[in-house]
Amino acid sequence: MAKSAASKKASSAAQTLARSPLAPRRFPVLANVRGVRLAGRAVGLKKARGVKDLMVAAFAPGTTVAGVFTKSKCPSAPVDWCRAILSRGRARVLVVNSGNANAFTGNAGDLLVAQTVGAAADLFGCRAQDVYLASTGVIGEPRPPDYIAGKLPGMKRVLAAKSWGDAAKAIMTTDTFPKAASRKVRIGKTMVNITGFAKGSGMIAPDMATMLGFVFTDAKIPAPVLQRLVRSAADESFNAITVDSDTSTSDTVLLFATGQAKGQPRIRSAGDKVLADFKAALREVFIDLARQIVRDGEGAQKFVTINVTGAESKRAARTVGLAVANSPLVKTAIAGEDANWGRIVMAVGKAGEKADRDRLSISIGGVPITRAGQLMPGYDETPVATHMKGDEIEIDIDLGIGRGRGTVWTCDLTHGYISINADYRS
Amino acid sequence: MAKSAASKKASSAAQTLARSPLAPRRFPVLANVRGVRLAGRAVGLKKARGVKDLMVAAFAPGTTVAGVFTKSKCPSAPVDWCRAILSRGRARVLVVNSGNANAFTGNAGDLLVAQTVGAAADLFGCRAQDVYLASTGVIGEPRPPDYIAGKLPGMKRVLAAKSWGDAAKAIMTTDTFPKAASRKVRIGKTMVNITGFAKGSGMIAPDMATMLGFVFTDAKIPAPVLQRLVRSAADESFNAITVDSDTSTSDTVLLFATGQAKGQPRIRSAGDKVLADFKAALREVFIDLARQIVRDGEGAQKFVTINVTGAESKRAARTVGLAVANSPLVKTAIAGEDANWGRIVMAVGKAGEKADRDRLSISIGGVPITRAGQLMPGYDETPVATHMKGDEIEIDIDLGIGRGRGTVWTCDLTHGYISINADYRS
Repeated sequence: MAKSAASKKASSAAQTLARSPLAPRRFPVLANVRGVRLAGRAVGLKKARGVKDLMVAAFAPGTTVAGVFTKSKCPSAPVDWCRAILSRGRARVLVVNSGNANAFTGNAGDLLVAQTVGAAADLFGCRAQDVYLASTGVIGEPRPPDYIAGKLPGMKRVLAAKSWGDAAKAIMTTDTFPKAASRKVRIGKTMVNITGFAKGSGMIAPDMATMLGFVFTDAKIPAPVLQRLVRSAADESFNAITVDSDTSTSDTVLLFATGQAKGQPRIRSAGDKVLADFKAALREVFIDLARQIVRDGEGAQKFVTINVTGAESKRAARTVGLAVANSPLVKTAIAGEDANWGRIVMAVGKAGEKADRDRLSISIGGVPITRAGQLMPGYDETPVATHMKGDEIEIDIDLGIGRGRGTVWTCDLTHGYISINADYRS
Repeated sequence: MAKSAASKKASSAAQTLARSPLAPRRFPVLANVRGVRLAGRAVGLKKARGVKDLMVAAFAPGTTVAGVFTKSKCPSAPVDWCRAILSRGRARVLVVNSGNANAFTGNAGDLLVAQTVGAAADLFGCRAQDVYLASTGVIGEPRPPDYIAGKLPGMKRVLAAKSWGDAAKAIMTTDTFPKAASRKVRIGKTMVNITGFAKGSGMIAPDMATMLGFVFTDAKIPAPVLQRLVRSAADESFNAITVDSDTSTSDTVLLFATGQAKGQPRIRSAGDKVLADFKAALREVFIDLARQIVRDGEGAQKFVTINVTGAESKRAARTVGLAVANSPLVKTAIAGEDANWGRIVMAVGKAGEKADRDRLSISIGGVPITRAGQLMPGYDETPVATHMKGDEIEIDIDLGIGRGRGTVWTCDLTHGYISINADYRS
């Protein structure tokens, strides 16, 4: 058994990681969501004593669900399970553990999933297919089938409407702060709440992987509509961030709608005009959570926004933005507070999307540096150099080709990243 | 003008970079190539005095040429020029400068190209379209049209058949050692020589970019055949290495055949059986040069070979190999001497190629770690941990899907990379 190295390292890393310098000042005030009760507790799945490691949320009957998952071809057992049941669109329970990813665990992983969902269904009086799972932690270490099931009754006893902070903490691995966001918005005349939490900071410690996001609303929204909303919001948020270009085996974003907000107009399609404000608020919550993940990127010292305009298409803008955001040379230049626009040109060029050297314009911190493929006449690096010293970096890239645009968020690549990922030897 | 930062930094980086610990013990013995005379000299293009910065090679009449170039959508002016003339397949002169990349220099860049090739054509009595160019160094700093032309007569006077070492040094930027390789091989009964040199170490110092490779043979090979040979050999070598996943605006590989080896059988196609040994030797020279570039990767402490088998296709094997080779988490684990196979699973999963978690087998240093999607029963990390402490790391990945296979070479990601790319502030 990989009696590993891995777990020892992970916990030593967790103990020594200081709170990210880009973390929000305080945990936000969150609106409760009618029809959602949660708990987050320490039940001994993690080695470090007293560290929260299990989260359970229970939903009112009639709750709909939608989600998006990792594109990894080697997904975890919980991801396989959620994907299989998602077409039903119904949810009553969500169980998330940290400490073990249940990924690359073969048949043992499937048995663990089966026993967990079976026990939850018995306990909450629902079908197994109403139970959603996510796991994050060490890859490749199988656990016994009752690893989680026995802990569920104790969790059920402490469920409460306001336990958001505990829940957000229980899904953390080597995150340095809990991440949550909340909005209130009207659908017709009915005020509904949207609250969510997330975890992730790249794939921080050895064998630790995963971005998880869970968002809850008391709006009443049919599952097929919810699926369109989650896909669109995730595309603008969780799919527009990158810390180190690596993709976890377990990435999961789920959106639950309890339908407990009374008097709300009936929703028939994702294009329904009455949903416009809700969609905007949902997008805000998703983007807020996604940006918090970047703010907890391993070793991050700077938060970077990359706006791409003038691309051939929206997809092309995203591809170019991610090529810049994932370039180790761009990221190290930012870490070095170096206004190195030549590396941005390089990254745009390698993205593979349509680009024309002689139409490319780049600004940093709002200062135009190149226009139409050449350095601005009389370019003065001073204001850009000042901008680079801040901890919020803004890069604007205009390809001058078409009307596609998109925004991508990332962080810099520092010695801290190397230390976190290479230096912790047990 | 970006009176930059960039050049100052580049030279300070060049001064402080120690020879790579993975460098070969000595510069190899190289065979001269009949019909090739070269020179490499310091002519003042680089700021550091006495550092070689211009290379000229002159070829016998009848020399054929083939090449491959960067896939960047923002290529340098010399790349644009070479691509435009390559279909002629004839070469008489090659001029390569280091110190300035002539990339992202707009119209000024085109004028510099025009004046350089014009002067070379006059001097050597050939057509401008027989003159090949490559430039490497700072991006985005235009130079006057006569930046290089005036230096050519002095270069011509010192051309010699054996100046390989000077030539290899003159194309270096922040490389820490010159890179060259040579083979002798028969085509029919005629002994021919293949000698080449290359530069590159990722995109090392700020604004420094570029992998360049130049290979010469006295075999007589028609240009269309040569083009097939160079494409195939580059695919197995320069396209199978990665230091940091970044692609230069100026990458150039050129293969010149002077046809001065007398009595050689006539070559009609790339599939000609009489070419078999030559192709193997050419591939060896290309792979030798490519591996030397990886050995000079920024901050590299370990040389990593990734063999992928059982993929759906050869292309899929390459994609999976590069996903593993480019994963910051895999590369930092190797830097940390951590046998972290979970990160390899992650990287295989994100590659996007067909993979099946339950068929995936991974070995490190020849020790099987996982088989059929699970950890080997009784896996003992000790021999793998010992292998990780060496400076040659071997990773074997079998996808268990098909018969596609491929090998990719890379290096680890260390504090040295961050220091080289972020810490040098002028």
